Amino acid sequence: MHVVMLLYPGMTQLDLTGPFEVLVQFKELSLHLVAKNRDPVIDSGGLRLTPEVTFANCPKADILFVPGGPGQISLMEDAEVLAFLRRQAEGATYVTSVSTGSLILAAAGLLTGYRATCHWLSLNQLDFFGVVPVKERVVIDRNRMTGAGVTSGIDFALTLVAKLFGEERAKRAQLAMEYDPKPPFVGGSPETSAPALVESLRAATASFQKKREDVARRAAAALHAG
Amino acid sequence: MHVVMLLYPGMTQLDLTGPFEVLVQFKELSLHLVAKNRDPVIDSGGLRLTPEVTFANCPKADILFVPGGPGQISLMEDAEVLAFLRRQAEGATYVTSVSTGSLILAAAGLLTGYRATCHWLSLNQLDFFGVVPVKERVVIDRNRMTGAGVTSGIDFALTLVAKLFGEERAKRAQLAMEYDPKPPFVGGSPETSAPALVESLRAATASFQKKREDVARRAAAALHAG
Repeated sequence: MHVVMLLYPGMTQLDLTGPFEVLVQFKELSLHLVAKNRDPVIDSGGLRLTPEVTFANCPKADILFVPGGPGQISLMEDAEVLAFLRRQAEGATYVTSVSTGSLILAAAGLLTGYRATCHWLSLNQLDFFGVVPVKERVVIDRNRMTGAGVTSGIDFALTLVAKLFGEERAKRAQLAMEYDPKPPFVGGSPETSAPALVESLRAATASFQKKREDVARRAAAALHAG
Repeated sequence: MHVVMLLYPGMTQLDLTGPFEVLVQFKELSLHLVAKNRDPVIDSGGLRLTPEVTFANCPKADILFVPGGPGQISLMEDAEVLAFLRRQAEGATYVTSVSTGSLILAAAGLLTGYRATCHWLSLNQLDFFGVVPVKERVVIDRNRMTGAGVTSGIDFALTLVAKLFGEERAKRAQLAMEYDPKPPFVGGSPETSAPALVESLRAATASFQKKREDVARRAAAALHAG
């Protein structure tokens, strides 16, 4: 099975590298990191990831995967990327994302009428595209599987391999990567964090989120018009 | 503060990319991915990571970080790497690792007399080097901080930033990356997994672990003789 994983400038690398570490343990899966061209892609934190295939020579996806990150904003209006995702989603067994990657799928029209999730700061924006926002860590609706923010990618990928290969093999992958998480603090979601901390992070990201929302509204209008 | 993160062929990328995502959120930290030369480094799963600096032009570490992975085996006997780590550890605020990265630090003599942890399959090998193996997810002993297998790197890095910048900012980073993990299955450690699954993974990795152990014993003998 071919897993096609999109790389793009300004992505959040852990959205992809978390799932990668789970999926790579399954010999049935061939992972393909794909980008417009083969130049190294620089993530939002400066990590360089190298694509192996381009849109032109990418195999047909059995699993299509889209990570999130600040670079997602421009991808919502990138006709070349959206057309590539639509082509790849046709006939795929699963169409998937982590974090704000779901907004890219949504802008391509690939989540219209589906339940899906997203990073908590941007979850409401799915609604612009006719997607039902769901505040859960991993959301499955028919063959769409979406994960919430960044680190949820590990939970997402373990859920995916359990669907594909059964629970026993998923648990084995979990044990191999010693995934028995013990965060040093209670928190990590708006529900488990102090309200003042949640508000502080909302305030600090407000102008960036406004930009993301403006582009999402425009991309949604283009999708509805298209 | 300079964070020097070692890259090497056959490393496990998530050992590094998990902590990277936490640390990159702190503007006080400059992250430097370092390798012998600037060629892309291919991890155990085939992901290509690009170093930005080499041993020759790497800044002096305030935080030294070593990931694990199958490629760690040859590094335990790589005089150039061990000498680089010893130089970098001198005067560092923290000397750190995730997974079998601790065996590389141990081979450099940097954990002798310290408590430390490692991936559960290799934890016992620390003992060869005069290191006290501790079965915990994150172990701190004076300025040495080690994480257990692979995914423990996220817990390790949050613990580290809490030490450096306080709990409030660590919790904020945790919320930004939505780290409120919900593994789909109970498991992920030998203690929480079915004994049959643990034994099956031990059996499947036995010949590889034998090789790792043989090299660790030889590296330990060289350290004691040196």
